Amino acid sequence: MCEANVYIVKGDKEELLMESVETAKHMKDDSWIFTNLFGEQKELKGKIKRMNLVDHKILFEPHNR
Amino acid sequence: MCEANVYIVKGDKEELLMESVETAKHMKDDSWIFTNLFGEQKELKGKIKRMNLVDHKILFEPHNR
Repeated sequence: MCEANVYIVKGDKEELLMESVETAKHMKDDSWIFTNLFGEQKELKGKIKRMNLVDHKILFEPHNR
Repeated sequence: MCEANVYIVKGDKEELLMESVETAKHMKDDSWIFTNLFGEQKELKGKIKRMNLVDHKILFEPHNR
């Protein structure tokens, strides 16, 4: 119940990438692997801009957008 | 109650940096500002290696250690 939702930041918009994320792993090539409650994974390059764990929110800025 | 604890990774050891972190903000110079439940802030350069929100754990690797 402390999972967070990952949003892609595009300009001034936020687009939901993945809900109920439990873990995030920063890889060497600057990609991140997010894993949710259901064991699903998404990997993408970019950086985490901001997190608010109380609001369950992670804002992610992808590279090469 | 969904705050996380930030640990500094030093080799194979983990050292507690800050408890009950609510927000993390990634600055342009690669530093991060962590703010806890009590409004206290810590800023340091480095990168987040891994997070497990269910375990309330953020592992941080500082630069120039």
